Amino acid sequence: MQAYALTVDKFLDHAAKWCGTREIVTGNAGLCAARIDYKTLRSRSNRLSGALRALGLRFGDRIGTLAWNTQNHLEMYYATMGVGRVCPTLNPRPTGAHLAAMINEAEDRALAVSSNLAPMIAELAPYCSGIEHFIVMDDEFEVPLKLGAHRAKQWTFEALLADFGASAPWGGFDENTPAGLCYTSGTTGQPKGVLYTHRSNYLHTLRALQADATAYTGSDTILAAVPMFHANGWGIPFAAPAVGAKLVLPGRHTDGASLAKLMIDEGVTVGVGVQTVWLGLLDHLDATGAEAPALKRLLIGGAKCPDSLLKRMEDRLGAIVQTSWGMTELSPLGTIAPLDTLPSTARASGKPPLGLDLKLTNAEGVTLPQQRGVVGHLKVKGASVIERYFKHDAIALDEEGYFDTGDLAIIDEDGNVTISGRSKDLIKSGGEWINPAEIEEIVGQHPDVAQVAVIARQDPKWGERPVLIVEPRHGQQGNANALLRLLRGRVADWWIPDQVFEIQVMPLAPTGKIDKNQLRADFANGRIASAGANR
Amino acid sequence: MQAYALTVDKFLDHAAKWCGTREIVTGNAGLCAARIDYKTLRSRSNRLSGALRALGLRFGDRIGTLAWNTQNHLEMYYATMGVGRVCPTLNPRPTGAHLAAMINEAEDRALAVSSNLAPMIAELAPYCSGIEHFIVMDDEFEVPLKLGAHRAKQWTFEALLADFGASAPWGGFDENTPAGLCYTSGTTGQPKGVLYTHRSNYLHTLRALQADATAYTGSDTILAAVPMFHANGWGIPFAAPAVGAKLVLPGRHTDGASLAKLMIDEGVTVGVGVQTVWLGLLDHLDATGAEAPALKRLLIGGAKCPDSLLKRMEDRLGAIVQTSWGMTELSPLGTIAPLDTLPSTARASGKPPLGLDLKLTNAEGVTLPQQRGVVGHLKVKGASVIERYFKHDAIALDEEGYFDTGDLAIIDEDGNVTISGRSKDLIKSGGEWINPAEIEEIVGQHPDVAQVAVIARQDPKWGERPVLIVEPRHGQQGNANALLRLLRGRVADWWIPDQVFEIQVMPLAPTGKIDKNQLRADFANGRIASAGANR
Repeated sequence: MQAYALTVDKFLDHAAKWCGTREIVTGNAGLCAARIDYKTLRSRSNRLSGALRALGLRFGDRIGTLAWNTQNHLEMYYATMGVGRVCPTLNPRPTGAHLAAMINEAEDRALAVSSNLAPMIAELAPYCSGIEHFIVMDDEFEVPLKLGAHRAKQWTFEALLADFGASAPWGGFDENTPAGLCYTSGTTGQPKGVLYTHRSNYLHTLRALQADATAYTGSDTILAAVPMFHANGWGIPFAAPAVGAKLVLPGRHTDGASLAKLMIDEGVTVGVGVQTVWLGLLDHLDATGAEAPALKRLLIGGAKCPDSLLKRMEDRLGAIVQTSWGMTELSPLGTIAPLDTLPSTARASGKPPLGLDLKLTNAEGVTLPQQRGVVGHLKVKGASVIERYFKHDAIALDEEGYFDTGDLAIIDEDGNVTISGRSKDLIKSGGEWINPAEIEEIVGQHPDVAQVAVIARQDPKWGERPVLIVEPRHGQQGNANALLRLLRGRVADWWIPDQVFEIQVMPLAPTGKIDKNQLRADFANGRIASAGANR
Repeated sequence: MQAYALTVDKFLDHAAKWCGTREIVTGNAGLCAARIDYKTLRSRSNRLSGALRALGLRFGDRIGTLAWNTQNHLEMYYATMGVGRVCPTLNPRPTGAHLAAMINEAEDRALAVSSNLAPMIAELAPYCSGIEHFIVMDDEFEVPLKLGAHRAKQWTFEALLADFGASAPWGGFDENTPAGLCYTSGTTGQPKGVLYTHRSNYLHTLRALQADATAYTGSDTILAAVPMFHANGWGIPFAAPAVGAKLVLPGRHTDGASLAKLMIDEGVTVGVGVQTVWLGLLDHLDATGAEAPALKRLLIGGAKCPDSLLKRMEDRLGAIVQTSWGMTELSPLGTIAPLDTLPSTARASGKPPLGLDLKLTNAEGVTLPQQRGVVGHLKVKGASVIERYFKHDAIALDEEGYFDTGDLAIIDEDGNVTISGRSKDLIKSGGEWINPAEIEEIVGQHPDVAQVAVIARQDPKWGERPVLIVEPRHGQQGNANALLRLLRGRVADWWIPDQVFEIQVMPLAPTGKIDKNQLRADFANGRIASAGANR
């Protein structure tokens, strides 16, 4: 059979050829800021490849982006990857120091930035001497970047395209060529890079497109409310052109009003993003009485979604909610609730579609003899799963070639996977394990609790003991004893935390997850005051 | 990212692990002859791998099958491919001489045969001295094969499994390892082998599983009415376990009554096969008044399906008909009508889902400047497309890496492909091309015509001229002038055949297509008498 390299440029080629008139719409506070079809987007992206080459950027060079979900950002994806340049996507939320560390580790030779993020460049530039070109994109930007003594050149996207754009042959290289680079959130250590290849992205796309997985079709209009700097934008920048779906990119604004307007104006059929984004949408629709009649489905991922919220979304929107679990190291799709069985089935985290092997082990890495009905450490293997972190020598796999997700999971008899915590959060008390996530889920149901975390304190007798830390809803302090009572009979007695602490604001990592490292440091340094309750 | 070989054993592993209780049902004249779940089938297939190894069959060896769609046949697929042995699937319809030629070219060391095909072995064996083992499968078979002086050993499937079965590790080899071998029908020359690899089959499966393509899901029950010896059984032996669909294999009998009974008893949701099979089903349902209420969809391929038959199928069955086009050299899927848009869209041959590049050229191989609205020679490229025929040195691709399908096609503005004939059937008259398929389609609509073919006769003035050959419906001879009148105004005047011939039975190739080579030979040898009509 033919040698046919699995490279991502083929996605946009396919869209341009077979669905050339389908649109990519970019929003700005809910209004349409740009509209283009696949045929034109392909042509512009390809000419941008030529422009990047004219700047002296070579095969394998890293050309980063610090940008929202926009047409220009998508064009940067294909312009870089199409000619074997690598596109590291940066999350604008970490501090400048963190960003500079990522830029320097990746040795980015150029950085394309959304114009309204341009002020960050003034902060970054002094620490990123390796950058030779800044490209400002997404709208007119007349004011030059404040680069101080930095030697880099600066370009606006359209001027670069107009002055240096030239068609450039795409593909023609090995499918194991790197394509993108994304950093993990770093909630459990320093951010680490995941270097995606063309092959891993191509296979991830086909895996995700199965009818029991994302099932996107050429008739869909997909609203990508997940940022393109998060784990390949959950694969949408590849999957949408691969099927010729219309694509709606919301730009910077993902508040309920902006998303609702785009959804209604553009006839969105599938919305993809974390549940908090859709909560904002629901609140807006409730407040205004607006409807999004074309919407058929919301695909959510990230944290476990409470049943009550699932039901509220489905009732209010008349749409199906499809749950999933993934991570940066998995490109990112791990499991997803089979679409064909929704909404009736168990769907905590779904099932693994073909292409991901999965096993549960004990804490020592030994495969559990029983893979159903017991909590274990979740290990995975597949063509779109990391082998080693960027610039790390150590292979991140066990002897059977599995990657440790760091998650704990339980699988029911029908094969539905539920993520039930993080292994690094486990607390070892008297030689036995306590899973903070189970405690947090119960306490989190109390109406006066905004956020909750359980961490370990060192204990001379037991080794470790759990402590409960809550951020009460405004003005609802003093529930410590009630919270502990909630746990009685629902977890083992020795799992119940010894102490409760109330804090005003829970520390959050840039991804929005609770930053337990910070919390542990604050606790160790005595910066958290007890709420007085004890078992 | 991880090195993760795309090998087909992963399909059955996936089914056994995640959909272990879903069933594979084998029919016999519509009754259930065998029923097994994926978990048990996986275990048996794996132990069969061990048995084949115990017979001394080595990595890369060819172990052929001459069999209907049955559980044992599926077990042979996985038992061979899982350990890197190659499974050539033989069509029982060609003559023994043709079969022997294929067996000898492939150097099959073993052949597994359905017990009711076992009588053919007596005919084949003398010409296939290289075969060392015959395995008789599919039901009890007490009588030994008649092998004459042949030195081969013979086994029954269950005895082999019981006596030599042993678990054997699957996979662990390169994804470009050969997996299967299938011969083209040979209507336009000698049969030629297509050697599939694990990679080509794996990628074909993912490509076909897209929601706009076959869209099989774990909730489906698939009736495989297409033989497993035809082009990977249209991929169903791989796709069904890949999603955990229940699979119904009809055995030898694909008459309407047998299929209807299986369909109803097993709750079939998707039927896959050529239109003639479903025509038999329709006739049976009409005659008996039976219903198949679970059926949602028929997936058809092969010849163009008349609109009237599409409508009859959809009306009578309350199911959608999804059209497709493929060929052995494509593994086989080429184009398919996007499911999401049915039944309203144009669907002659559908569109190419991601993974197949496609272009139209002129007869000299030059890409047509306009790819829409004009008939051209269809060339394709992809990971599941042939590079060269088995044991042929010549690469079957053009300079751009495209394979010439031998088909003519036209693509409409929306990207829908219609196959409009075979390039080898084209007739060159006065330096211009006549497409017999267009003439045949029009004449075929006449109620008195059962089969129709247009071939060339040599002509001293024009080079070639078309002649029309029809097989009238019983007792409806003498329509020659009426048939020619049908063509007037619908094709160019100079396309209209000069002569009409009526024959009693149209010669058919083993696949059921009209054998134009035979027809041309018969015509040249004066074995076809004129019906007297002339333009």
